[in-house]
Amino acid sequence: MVEGPREKESRKADSLAQLSSPAVDVWVATASTAGEPYLVPLSLCWADGRAVIAIDRGSRTARHLAATGRARLGVGPTRDVVMLDAVVERTVGVDEDTELGAAYAAQADWDPRGSEGYVFVVLRPERVQAWREVDEIPGRTLMREGRWLV
Amino acid sequence: MVEGPREKESRKADSLAQLSSPAVDVWVATASTAGEPYLVPLSLCWADGRAVIAIDRGSRTARHLAATGRARLGVGPTRDVVMLDAVVERTVGVDEDTELGAAYAAQADWDPRGSEGYVFVVLRPERVQAWREVDEIPGRTLMREGRWLV
Repeated sequence: MVEGPREKESRKADSLAQLSSPAVDVWVATASTAGEPYLVPLSLCWADGRAVIAIDRGSRTARHLAATGRARLGVGPTRDVVMLDAVVERTVGVDEDTELGAAYAAQADWDPRGSEGYVFVVLRPERVQAWREVDEIPGRTLMREGRWLV
Repeated sequence: MVEGPREKESRKADSLAQLSSPAVDVWVATASTAGEPYLVPLSLCWADGRAVIAIDRGSRTARHLAATGRARLGVGPTRDVVMLDAVVERTVGVDEDTELGAAYAAQADWDPRGSEGYVFVVLRPERVQAWREVDEIPGRTLMREGRWLV
C-alpha cells in the first residue's frame, strides 16, 4: 500500500478518532520547575475538546501539573502519533463532577470514581500535531494557540 | 490467558529484549530549565547498556538535553512499558564515532550518518522500571542508581 502524506483535514479527523477511541492511553510528559522531566502512560478521556486524565493527587505528574500548569501528550503508536501541548484548565476530585466522571468511565477501561485522593485534570490543548512517518513532518501542526487550522 | 505479575528476572529479560528489538521507537521526554515539558518519538539504539538517539543538534530535545542533562524514556505499547530515567553521558557527531554509527544503523530503520547537523546522544540509565498492567506496579523498579536489582 503506497500512500502519500495525509492532508490536514484527514489528519484532524484521524486525530479526533484516535483521541476518542475506547480504552486509549496517552503518554503524559510533565516537568518540575527545576527542569526534571517525567513521563508516564495513563488512560485518556477526550471530552468537549479537552484531554482528561485521572491521577492520584500526590503523584509526581499531579505535582508537576500543579506547579507548572503544562503537559505535552502523545497518543498512538510512535508511527501514527497525535501530540498535544496542553495547559491545565481545572483539577477536580473524581467524585465532584458527575458529568465528567460519567464521560471518563464511559471511555476509559477503568473507573476512578470512589478512589480516595484521585482527581481529574482537565487539559486544554494549545497546539496539536499529527504525523505518521517522516513524509508527514511538513504540515504536522493542526492547532496553534488553541485554534484548529483546519 | 491468565497470567500473574512477572518476576523481576522475567521483567529484566523482557525489557532488554524490547530495548534491543530492530526498529524500536522510544518516547523521549525532556524539559527546559524553566520546566516546560517536551516529548517526541524517536528511533532507539540500545548499545552497551546505553540508550542512543540520533537528533538534530538544534532540535528542542537536543537543546533540553544540553541544558539539563536528563531524559525520561518510554519504550513499548502503554500496557507493556519499559521506563528509563537517564542522564546524558556524551554527545557526538554522527560521523565521529564509527562503532556507534554502525550499531545505530544496524538496529534502527534509518541511518543518520551523513546527515548535516545530526548528533548521537548516549544516555546512561539510572533507573529502569517495567510494567504491563496495574498488578505489575509493585516490583516495577529493576534498576536504581545505575545498578540492576536483579
